[in-house]
Amino acid sequence: MVRLQPYNYERFVQADHLEFSFGGGEANVAVSLANYGLDAVYVTKLPAHAIGQAAVNSLRRYSVDTSMIVRGGDRIGISYNEKGASQRGSVCIYDRAHSAIQESTPSDFDWDVIFKGADWFHFTGITPALGPNMVDACRDACKAAKAHGVRISCDLNYRGKLWSRQQAREAMTDLCQYVDVCISNEEDAKDVFGIEAEATDIYAGEINREGYKSVARQLADRFGFEKVAITLRESRSASDNGWSAMLFDAVGDEYHFSKKYDLHIVDRVGGGDSFGGGLIYALLTGKGNQRAVEFAVAASALKHTVEGDYNMVTAAEVEKLADGDGSGRIQR
Amino acid sequence: MVRLQPYNYERFVQADHLEFSFGGGEANVAVSLANYGLDAVYVTKLPAHAIGQAAVNSLRRYSVDTSMIVRGGDRIGISYNEKGASQRGSVCIYDRAHSAIQESTPSDFDWDVIFKGADWFHFTGITPALGPNMVDACRDACKAAKAHGVRISCDLNYRGKLWSRQQAREAMTDLCQYVDVCISNEEDAKDVFGIEAEATDIYAGEINREGYKSVARQLADRFGFEKVAITLRESRSASDNGWSAMLFDAVGDEYHFSKKYDLHIVDRVGGGDSFGGGLIYALLTGKGNQRAVEFAVAASALKHTVEGDYNMVTAAEVEKLADGDGSGRIQR
Amino acid sequence: MVRLQPYNYERFVQADHLEFSFGGGEANVAVSLANYGLDAVYVTKLPAHAIGQAAVNSLRRYSVDTSMIVRGGDRIGISYNEKGASQRGSVCIYDRAHSAIQESTPSDFDWDVIFKGADWFHFTGITPALGPNMVDACRDACKAAKAHGVRISCDLNYRGKLWSRQQAREAMTDLCQYVDVCISNEEDAKDVFGIEAEATDIYAGEINREGYKSVARQLADRFGFEKVAITLRESRSASDNGWSAMLFDAVGDEYHFSKKYDLHIVDRVGGGDSFGGGLIYALLTGKGNQRAVEFAVAASALKHTVEGDYNMVTAAEVEKLADGDGSGRIQR
Amino acid sequence: MVRLQPYNYERFVQADHLEFSFGGGEANVAVSLANYGLDAVYVTKLPAHAIGQAAVNSLRRYSVDTSMIVRGGDRIGISYNEKGASQRGSVCIYDRAHSAIQESTPSDFDWDVIFKGADWFHFTGITPALGPNMVDACRDACKAAKAHGVRISCDLNYRGKLWSRQQAREAMTDLCQYVDVCISNEEDAKDVFGIEAEATDIYAGEINREGYKSVARQLADRFGFEKVAITLRESRSASDNGWSAMLFDAVGDEYHFSKKYDLHIVDRVGGGDSFGGGLIYALLTGKGNQRAVEFAVAASALKHTVEGDYNMVTAAEVEKLADGDGSGRIQR
Amino acid sequence: MVRLQPYNYERFVQADHLEFSFGGGEANVAVSLANYGLDAVYVTKLPAHAIGQAAVNSLRRYSVDTSMIVRGGDRIGISYNEKGASQRGSVCIYDRAHSAIQESTPSDFDWDVIFKGADWFHFTGITPALGPNMVDACRDACKAAKAHGVRISCDLNYRGKLWSRQQAREAMTDLCQYVDVCISNEEDAKDVFGIEAEATDIYAGEINREGYKSVARQLADRFGFEKVAITLRESRSASDNGWSAMLFDAVGDEYHFSKKYDLHIVDRVGGGDSFGGGLIYALLTGKGNQRAVEFAVAASALKHTVEGDYNMVTAAEVEKLADGDGSGRIQR
Amino acid sequence: MVRLQPYNYERFVQADHLEFSFGGGEANVAVSLANYGLDAVYVTKLPAHAIGQAAVNSLRRYSVDTSMIVRGGDRIGISYNEKGASQRGSVCIYDRAHSAIQESTPSDFDWDVIFKGADWFHFTGITPALGPNMVDACRDACKAAKAHGVRISCDLNYRGKLWSRQQAREAMTDLCQYVDVCISNEEDAKDVFGIEAEATDIYAGEINREGYKSVARQLADRFGFEKVAITLRESRSASDNGWSAMLFDAVGDEYHFSKKYDLHIVDRVGGGDSFGGGLIYALLTGKGNQRAVEFAVAASALKHTVEGDYNMVTAAEVEKLADGDGSGRIQR
Repeated sequence: MVRLQPYNYERFVQADHLEFSFGGGEANVAVSLANYGLDAVYVTKLPAHAIGQAAVNSLRRYSVDTSMIVRGGDRIGISYNEKGASQRGSVCIYDRAHSAIQESTPSDFDWDVIFKGADWFHFTGITPALGPNMVDACRDACKAAKAHGVRISCDLNYRGKLWSRQQAREAMTDLCQYVDVCISNEEDAKDVFGIEAEATDIYAGEINREGYKSVARQLADRFGFEKVAITLRESRSASDNGWSAMLFDAVGDEYHFSKKYDLHIVDRVGGGDSFGGGLIYALLTGKGNQRAVEFAVAASALKHTVEGDYNMVTAAEVEKLADGDGSGRIQR
Repeated sequence: MVRLQPYNYERFVQADHLEFSFGGGEANVAVSLANYGLDAVYVTKLPAHAIGQAAVNSLRRYSVDTSMIVRGGDRIGISYNEKGASQRGSVCIYDRAHSAIQESTPSDFDWDVIFKGADWFHFTGITPALGPNMVDACRDACKAAKAHGVRISCDLNYRGKLWSRQQAREAMTDLCQYVDVCISNEEDAKDVFGIEAEATDIYAGEINREGYKSVARQLADRFGFEKVAITLRESRSASDNGWSAMLFDAVGDEYHFSKKYDLHIVDRVGGGDSFGGGLIYALLTGKGNQRAVEFAVAASALKHTVEGDYNMVTAAEVEKLADGDGSGRIQR
Repeated sequence: MVRLQPYNYERFVQADHLEFSFGGGEANVAVSLANYGLDAVYVTKLPAHAIGQAAVNSLRRYSVDTSMIVRGGDRIGISYNEKGASQRGSVCIYDRAHSAIQESTPSDFDWDVIFKGADWFHFTGITPALGPNMVDACRDACKAAKAHGVRISCDLNYRGKLWSRQQAREAMTDLCQYVDVCISNEEDAKDVFGIEAEATDIYAGEINREGYKSVARQLADRFGFEKVAITLRESRSASDNGWSAMLFDAVGDEYHFSKKYDLHIVDRVGGGDSFGGGLIYALLTGKGNQRAVEFAVAASALKHTVEGDYNMVTAAEVEKLADGDGSGRIQR
Repeated sequence: MVRLQPYNYERFVQADHLEFSFGGGEANVAVSLANYGLDAVYVTKLPAHAIGQAAVNSLRRYSVDTSMIVRGGDRIGISYNEKGASQRGSVCIYDRAHSAIQESTPSDFDWDVIFKGADWFHFTGITPALGPNMVDACRDACKAAKAHGVRISCDLNYRGKLWSRQQAREAMTDLCQYVDVCISNEEDAKDVFGIEAEATDIYAGEINREGYKSVARQLADRFGFEKVAITLRESRSASDNGWSAMLFDAVGDEYHFSKKYDLHIVDRVGGGDSFGGGLIYALLTGKGNQRAVEFAVAASALKHTVEGDYNMVTAAEVEKLADGDGSGRIQR
Repeated sequence: MVRLQPYNYERFVQADHLEFSFGGGEANVAVSLANYGLDAVYVTKLPAHAIGQAAVNSLRRYSVDTSMIVRGGDRIGISYNEKGASQRGSVCIYDRAHSAIQESTPSDFDWDVIFKGADWFHFTGITPALGPNMVDACRDACKAAKAHGVRISCDLNYRGKLWSRQQAREAMTDLCQYVDVCISNEEDAKDVFGIEAEATDIYAGEINREGYKSVARQLADRFGFEKVAITLRESRSASDNGWSAMLFDAVGDEYHFSKKYDLHIVDRVGGGDSFGGGLIYALLTGKGNQRAVEFAVAASALKHTVEGDYNMVTAAEVEKLADGDGSGRIQR
Repeated sequence: MVRLQPYNYERFVQADHLEFSFGGGEANVAVSLANYGLDAVYVTKLPAHAIGQAAVNSLRRYSVDTSMIVRGGDRIGISYNEKGASQRGSVCIYDRAHSAIQESTPSDFDWDVIFKGADWFHFTGITPALGPNMVDACRDACKAAKAHGVRISCDLNYRGKLWSRQQAREAMTDLCQYVDVCISNEEDAKDVFGIEAEATDIYAGEINREGYKSVARQLADRFGFEKVAITLRESRSASDNGWSAMLFDAVGDEYHFSKKYDLHIVDRVGGGDSFGGGLIYALLTGKGNQRAVEFAVAASALKHTVEGDYNMVTAAEVEKLADGDGSGRIQR
């Protein structure tokens, strides 16, 4: 997805220049994993023209394997992204109807080839939201992944502009049966599945630990998830957030809360995806649950300081922050 | 239409920043006329979101009356524009399917209101190329214009990526019956109507005066145009062009050739539209045929030195060039 | 007024590039009102050359009616603006002596034409500060406004670099007799009229509610204002401010304090004007006093996050913030 | 003088960013000389604020001695400069009325201190054009220079926007009595003194060698100049010029024509000043007449390829071009 | 190699911002080949830090296989590149002493692994110029390539700032014994091997066809090259060049001259490398000699219009130009 | 030293443009002093090419006397600087091995000439860290300074990437015998000399006043320093720091703690140097100890809001902040 953004804090109605980058839920996760040194393959469909090629180049630049990307269709989706500050929230205007991926057909993807030798499959709730054919594609992918013994994670990522809650619930209920690791925030769980904790006002900027434990357990109970990660954002303003997460291990029945970071935000978009990327990396490389959630939260804390959708940090940088040095001293 | 362009001569596959402007055939003509001091009203449909608003702002900035623009629909069309140089031609990648204007319906526009008090209606062949509903809209507009005694000009502007020659011929044959002033180049006349002059190789960079006279007469004879203007581009390279035009007055049976300019090109896109804007201004303000074609060619010569689709020049600047000072001396 | 500003936090002595925009007290209010959908007419005098035209374009871009702007004179005023941060305050170097507006004469403006059909007239204390002829022009305008039944608001806006306190007091005492709604801050009231509250140190960053009430009442008593609005800025640093306001309704003898926002500042200049624009809009559209001051404060809270003098927000965005969502969540 | 210029070939009415640099006739000559390694002192008056300081910094950056610059006054002059191309000439909008230098008084400058140890004094016709006090200042400076045995050069540089031909003739006739080396072009000689060659159309782009010899001789005869240099610009377009010069040595009664360069122009402004800088350097360092004019023309040929008013080239680079390598090969 | 370049035509002494890209002889050829769709592997040594990583990213972005790049050493070489225009030639200041590749040792590279499955090995004379260890590395590579049946091409590319002619001759005489396809220009042949054609002044801008045939034959005779390609640059100025080439097939004893392009130059650096990339692609894909040289020249004609070292064009674009459409018309 | 930095908060791996400035410990102090109006001479060795010249220009721009800079050598050192935010610390990648200054010899500098008429000599621990020849150069300089009655200050500035603690201790123990005023932070004192205060965790963000007093006294006792200044940074994040300092006067046995500023950081690099510059200025101009440390801390508080290494503030601005106005109000 093309990401177009005015410079600094300009609004579109006054802008004459844009930053031209690329992003999107699954792409962002792929870049995170590639930056950590894993072999990350990104699957989508992109038009054959120069803008599609620029998207491919952007992924290759950060070492994502683009050989499985199908080329064709007419257009690539666009996210017009306006950066917020203080009391003004960021605004995303999506223009992705009729994109090549949205208009792709199941036959575009040969999942058996794609999953050959793979260890992990990640998708987000944004993809099935693009239309029924995408729900089918996700189901095909999940089934093939299961057949190849590939673990599956899903970030619920509800987008109200793309589908209704009813549509989301139906599709995601179907797809979640294949999922091993579910990533959510309280809003998603409520919007998609109607699962909510009592006595928590997510807009109040206060974290209710018991509430989150309740949500995670309900999710795991309903879909049989192995693990449920819930990100806990305290949105004080568009410039300052509190940021932490909880990982619930349903097998061991353990709740792991990470430390909390006070973020001064450079770029908020992609923050959730960077958590997913960090978590998958941590689980794939055998870290324990507590370390995994710490790694994932530290990864996404760093993402909030990086321009663009992609999380441009190394595993060593994440480890260092997870180990406790958040003082921001110059490294020289 | 949004116009996205990399800085300088960068290609999209290497670009990280884009110039964000707006343009399009009829919009460019409207801006030209407004810059010359006329009351120019631009009619289209644009989405209600910030990108649609930015398009409105862009037109307002140059004094175009935007009060007749219908707001609605999902997206605004995009032209990804890559500037060429020397042997590398400029590239336009259009992403305008499903735009608000393309998906508009005849009932979106109340032509009787729009043409009230108007003197001139201009459209290009790009608009009907967007789909059958747009052919209908153009026909509705032409009929209403005629009913209000409004003169009509049309720039054939064939775009092979939008429709086939057969589709173009059928639609434009219909619409041209309403047109008073036709603007074309030899390629358009041939592509749309199969009209061509003998013994002219338009790629050879040589101008065949008799051939152009033949084309203009054939066009006028077939459709009853009052005037036919043909622009004569000698494309030596993407950086250097020869540029002139001929105006055929079918009533007086006179052919008026302009002087020829050797252009060192800053921005080629919108060059034809600036000719149309200059011609309409000249005819509306009562200039004679020879002066009209000189004004129009001078206007578009200046446009080739201006960044963006719009021709940012005043009538006084055009007059000065038409009067002969093309030496490029500093004005101080 | 041209606004020239180095990129980011650069200082002029190191800058090689500038942002080129436009602004000024009354212009900023006009843009606010136009952005909210009202018909806003801006009256000034600007030179006929390209820089004057660029100023006109800038206002048109945001839908301000520029048809009453007189063209002539030699120069347009300039504000060299350096953005501050943390302990370094922003710096404005004015270069507006001998501007077209400053050298205009009363005969340049036909106030009867200008106020025909108008509902509201707004001016600031900066305009009469430009010289005796501007005091005369403001008086002429006020008288004509009164004659046309137009309500008048004035933002005291004392600028010590333009005139002495004595000059200001004399002129503003005269002009304030026509004013219905006065906008001030405690510094202005003291600088211009010597009105101050006891026991308040405005530099201490602490708000003294009783003190502000006292100032507002004194202002209303002395000049017969219908309403007095006082903005309450707690300037903790150039990056962080507390921001709220009080609206005193002299008729109903009611004091309305708004909620207070903790601002992380993107651009401080124009903050006060955006309050004025918000207040006028709220009063013109019939909001009650409490809602009016909440709207005005929310509007200017948003302005502090927008680059440039103008407040690029819609009424809907302001309403949303006034309704309580200042969490800065992404809107998608 | 501040120089504000839109990026690339943008026009002011569409620009949102400007290049911020400094320049002006005598300043440009000073920078040329400093770049060639001479001790160059620039004398002017600049306001004490940050913009004045930025001007000082700009000169210091290129090694001009700024210790004689008087600080005071209110404003620094501005040149709004729009770069032309092809048939569109560059436009300079001057905003320098009421600048510190224009409003300076003779007592601001202590010429005896300034000329102590100096070898050469250069001024242009732009300075006395600023007003009668500047004519006086120039006369004072010339007299002091003569008293200190300092040679004097003057570039006539007529600016019709600053004074009338009659005013120019009167003032320059007075000042030229002190001048040893006069720099002119045919337009200046005609505009200022009514001296012209027969049968030469300076706009025709053809050089009339005999005509220029005639002009130079008339100038030398009337004012007793030791040398007269005339630059010969063939302005084919704003992008392409022919460029050469002639140096007339009145003592030896010799005419020296330089070779002619076909320029592809990057930045035209300051081109004449760079000729002056090159000529003064060549004469000060004892080059012969033929070499001096070749050096000066090569210097200004290079200037036309350099962004900004100042000529950023070394003496070695000029020598190399004057020696014949204009092939533009990469130096590596 | 990092490439740092001021914006537009700025010089370093006035620049405050730089374009940050990467390039270098062999890297440029690798990018060309990858852009044409071949599997291109680039071998070098780069430091493990972020700047080294940025270089890797740059290559990956354009699909070059970077898996054989050795990471280590302290620094990456830099080319400070200043773009020339008209009579001012571009300037490259190299800062590559002590780079990781220069300080690499033969054991850093396992050529047997590298050449497994490879078809072609290309190097330039710049690499052995970095030092005796690099001569050894090139020799090792050539021997291994021969052993694997890999064809070898070499672009002589003499750089006088890196080594003396004597050093170059000794090293290149040794290495050329392994080379199948030699790429040169007349200067290289003379500088490195003392081979020159009679009666040709390469600075005169005139092409001597017989002279070039003589040089090619002498090169082939001395080293047993299968083919010799000579590029023919007519350097009229830094902005305008004539550009063509000749391919001598020693086996068939045939000389193939390409058509000649009149280039208006956007970026001159990498022009020769793009010729090499085009030639290798043409030969690897089985084009005949005449088509091969036409493809290579067209490829590099396009390169001169592309910003940066790399040639960002597709094979289809090159074919189109080689087929004759150099008119620079807009593709839409 | 060249300072290359991506725009805003970009990382190098994603950057395509860099800010190009200059800096370095002693250079930054020199610029501070020149900005305060003192005569500051900077001594180093720089290559004769354009990049070396750009460094000289940069210093001259801010009035530093560059006449003592030796020109020669091959390269200028580079600091690749990546700006951090929030939990991501800034990163400096140094590429300064083999720089002209590092490879200079003692005979390059004639200290007797350099110190003629000087009042103060300042160096930092970075310079001797460049190699044994630099230790020698520093010793030569110190001895000459002493001989000329010049006071000496040294900022310990330990850089672990340049030398080991053992090397640092040995060299600095030698050099510190000449030093009158020592500037340090607790880390430096510990890293270089093993001096530390008990019970203080410098990473904890809490200031231990007694601990700092202990460190200062130990330093003074060991080396006979007249004064010891210790900067106290509470690094809460890369965006927010607490900042204060202590000045110990060994003669009077007095400890002077400054007020503490809460910094919202624009640019962290050069923060320590700006303290040094402020302190030297304050001591040279005869301010008392308390005022001196207040001035120095205020100066460096302002530096943290200025882009680039250099502290672009005037003495008046520092005085104003030291006098207590840190509210960041607009100055207009």
